Amino acid sequence: MFAFGIGLASYSSRGDILDVYYPTPAKDLDAQLSKLLTSRAPADDALSPEQTSRLADALLDAGHARLGSAARLLAEADRPLCWTELDEDRPIETTTQAYLKLHLLSHRCALPNSLNLDGIFAALPNVAWSSQGPIGIADIDERLVRARIEGAPIIVHSLDKFPRMTDYVIPSGVRIADASRIRLGAYLGEGTTVMHEGFINFNAGAIGPNMVEGRISQGVMLGAGTDLGGGASTMGTLSGGGNITISIGENCLIGANAGTGIPLGDRCTIEAGLYITAGTPVELLDDARESVRTVKARELAGESDLLFIRNARTGTVECRTNRSAIQLNEQLHAHN
Amino acid sequence: MFAFGIGLASYSSRGDILDVYYPTPAKDLDAQLSKLLTSRAPADDALSPEQTSRLADALLDAGHARLGSAARLLAEADRPLCWTELDEDRPIETTTQAYLKLHLLSHRCALPNSLNLDGIFAALPNVAWSSQGPIGIADIDERLVRARIEGAPIIVHSLDKFPRMTDYVIPSGVRIADASRIRLGAYLGEGTTVMHEGFINFNAGAIGPNMVEGRISQGVMLGAGTDLGGGASTMGTLSGGGNITISIGENCLIGANAGTGIPLGDRCTIEAGLYITAGTPVELLDDARESVRTVKARELAGESDLLFIRNARTGTVECRTNRSAIQLNEQLHAHN
Amino acid sequence: MFAFGIGLASYSSRGDILDVYYPTPAKDLDAQLSKLLTSRAPADDALSPEQTSRLADALLDAGHARLGSAARLLAEADRPLCWTELDEDRPIETTTQAYLKLHLLSHRCALPNSLNLDGIFAALPNVAWSSQGPIGIADIDERLVRARIEGAPIIVHSLDKFPRMTDYVIPSGVRIADASRIRLGAYLGEGTTVMHEGFINFNAGAIGPNMVEGRISQGVMLGAGTDLGGGASTMGTLSGGGNITISIGENCLIGANAGTGIPLGDRCTIEAGLYITAGTPVELLDDARESVRTVKARELAGESDLLFIRNARTGTVECRTNRSAIQLNEQLHAHN
Repeated sequence: MFAFGIGLASYSSRGDILDVYYPTPAKDLDAQLSKLLTSRAPADDALSPEQTSRLADALLDAGHARLGSAARLLAEADRPLCWTELDEDRPIETTTQAYLKLHLLSHRCALPNSLNLDGIFAALPNVAWSSQGPIGIADIDERLVRARIEGAPIIVHSLDKFPRMTDYVIPSGVRIADASRIRLGAYLGEGTTVMHEGFINFNAGAIGPNMVEGRISQGVMLGAGTDLGGGASTMGTLSGGGNITISIGENCLIGANAGTGIPLGDRCTIEAGLYITAGTPVELLDDARESVRTVKARELAGESDLLFIRNARTGTVECRTNRSAIQLNEQLHAHN
Repeated sequence: MFAFGIGLASYSSRGDILDVYYPTPAKDLDAQLSKLLTSRAPADDALSPEQTSRLADALLDAGHARLGSAARLLAEADRPLCWTELDEDRPIETTTQAYLKLHLLSHRCALPNSLNLDGIFAALPNVAWSSQGPIGIADIDERLVRARIEGAPIIVHSLDKFPRMTDYVIPSGVRIADASRIRLGAYLGEGTTVMHEGFINFNAGAIGPNMVEGRISQGVMLGAGTDLGGGASTMGTLSGGGNITISIGENCLIGANAGTGIPLGDRCTIEAGLYITAGTPVELLDDARESVRTVKARELAGESDLLFIRNARTGTVECRTNRSAIQLNEQLHAHN
Repeated sequence: MFAFGIGLASYSSRGDILDVYYPTPAKDLDAQLSKLLTSRAPADDALSPEQTSRLADALLDAGHARLGSAARLLAEADRPLCWTELDEDRPIETTTQAYLKLHLLSHRCALPNSLNLDGIFAALPNVAWSSQGPIGIADIDERLVRARIEGAPIIVHSLDKFPRMTDYVIPSGVRIADASRIRLGAYLGEGTTVMHEGFINFNAGAIGPNMVEGRISQGVMLGAGTDLGGGASTMGTLSGGGNITISIGENCLIGANAGTGIPLGDRCTIEAGLYITAGTPVELLDDARESVRTVKARELAGESDLLFIRNARTGTVECRTNRSAIQLNEQLHAHN
């Protein structure tokens, strides 16, 4: 079995599914576990509390402590649970499948760009994420009025297809200053610190340890030890950007308000305020800082030990060998 | 009648008005409706539940289904409602007037820059917007202590004159990833997607469809099909900026971390990381990329089909004809 | 006594302290008050409601109205309070000490960079800040599941060592559009307005009045009348930046998406989009705009009346005398 989860769903007043919460999603299940699960799959993917309770017993008996304890807890719900199993990693067709894959990413069961996410936008409903939980768009107007009449106004903090990650998954060893900027489906490796200006889209993230004060677009990954400065931008492929998927290697420093439209190798630095796009002409300098030749930045894609600056005397974008790779501040990561 | 609304207000412990919620504000009412309303206006602008109920009957009888149903629902409140009518579009003098005009903008009853908003700062009280609703500034210290004593801490998510839009108005066909960045009074046309880094002030917005990942300052509007990149800035007129009101036409692309201090026509592009202010000298290039002349950017205000870049070899800010107008990603907007 | 506070703490299920709320922290207490307090210090720093009530009487009798009333209110709690006194300003060793110092900063009892904050990262636990208050990291997974089962999902808005300021301290005369971007320990002087893109770290802030639409890093202070533009960056010393502590004087304008890696004196301007780092070569121009010489920006650290631009014709970073110091918009600050 490729992936599996038992989830708690929310529904709109019409009965449309709004979101699913899978406390312990699993990926690449072994044959024994797959068999155990398959034998207990409910006909309609709706698992009653009693079925959940019996499943918990079976899982615990078979030594699957984590899955078993989760099922034990979920059996306390007084409503049916979602049984979601994926035999293969095919395009997404349902809301439950979409949520399961987003959970797999944030639970570090799968790296960004390793799952088939085709169809995800169509499968995810737009939801009003509120202080009273997810609310269907068709229900929200009346709910707002009723809540005001009752003197307990609803706060609608997002109106989106993707919820925030931390309402579903709390990865170990991370800090996230403003969780409204991390979508479910983000991958935050151990030791990742995301400051208030940091942002991580779904299917994107950081291997950890990392300092993230800039924006990690869909599809982008940061290598270990890399610092994405305040307001720094990584060019995405969904909207307005290019069509190269960006990645940034290890021990890089993307300065504050800088940006990159090309993938970078290890130990690269882009100075604060400089935006490198794939088409930027870059003058290569040798160790004596003599000009060697000018190339489009995309020809440097993925190379290591590069330092990009804009010469403050001539305005020329230059690239030379980076002699001072960075070190993250231990203080900021040691105590996550 | 120029504008009308029946609203639910919140009050401080001293009885000062903190905010007003108008579920169905109306603008440019016809003579028949104006007459119906005027004949039922309460003397002191406070409408009792009984009066609201009778008004609902009258509105429904006269065929005003939307206003009538809203009044029917509001009549369930056990306290008086705010009756707010504006005969003309004059400067704002009261909190109720300010809130009614902000609602008109977010309900798409009025375009930004079309309403008289003079006096709005003085008319809006500063409020602690909290998980327990609006709280008066004079009350907040004691409320914080009492809530802690009771073991249910209050979260104060904003301390401002303007609340977030989505606690009052949910426009159709939009997505807003982080609603704390959209003020009541923002105008979001059908098909507008605002990502986490997007921001829209009051009296500002987007015609839709649009991708908004940057900041739309007070007074600024985006035309249809325009993409405002991550962290992109539109210069405002309230603080620190210039005195030209910015607008951006259709199918423009303002790159990530870029910015503009001049209005743009249609199909313009500013490359990522480049900030054009009104006073920036810009070298105009012809189709052979030969220099024609240098002008201040403000001389190009409102023109279409312009591409702005900073030449990466010479550091010169250049402008030439834009040959690749953008297309929004259908996937991101088709399913709002 | 150097500092004193009576606080309400939250605890994890294991009994670990998560945060402390001190409604009225005090600094530099006079001898009489210090003596009164010392004589009533509980042996184990845990003050029972009865002890708190007697302390309130003693404080009120001695004329300490503010501290006395606060103690009177706190005595209503049905659990012990934290008694935290600091004889001297030594490195931080406990969570209670860390929280007391952060409160002192936000209550304007101490300016940034005036307190010994060594050890603060180790003393602060990482906490899940949620709609149900602070939750210990070890407790959060089960709490998320139980809340979902009960149909009242928890919102986790931050996973961090530092909470947001406004849940603890509401300084007078300020506006904060998005309070999730202001950490406890920030110093906001009277008349400070922080827009949605503004950010203020702990031990950092603004003297007021100020317009803050950019990021104030740890250790950085803005002088009165200064405008930090949208997305503007001040280079920090904790991560990725340099080792010079930045400060910005009075009546400066840091343009949108600009940044500084050097301290600035009064009446300085950095144009929108330009990032000055300590190592940036800057061409100095005289009043006839003739080049005088080129210096590293760090040589200009702390000087007043400077205007920094990047020449749009040549790409050269230039500095000349600033002839148009800014004025804040009275409208935006007069009604805080």
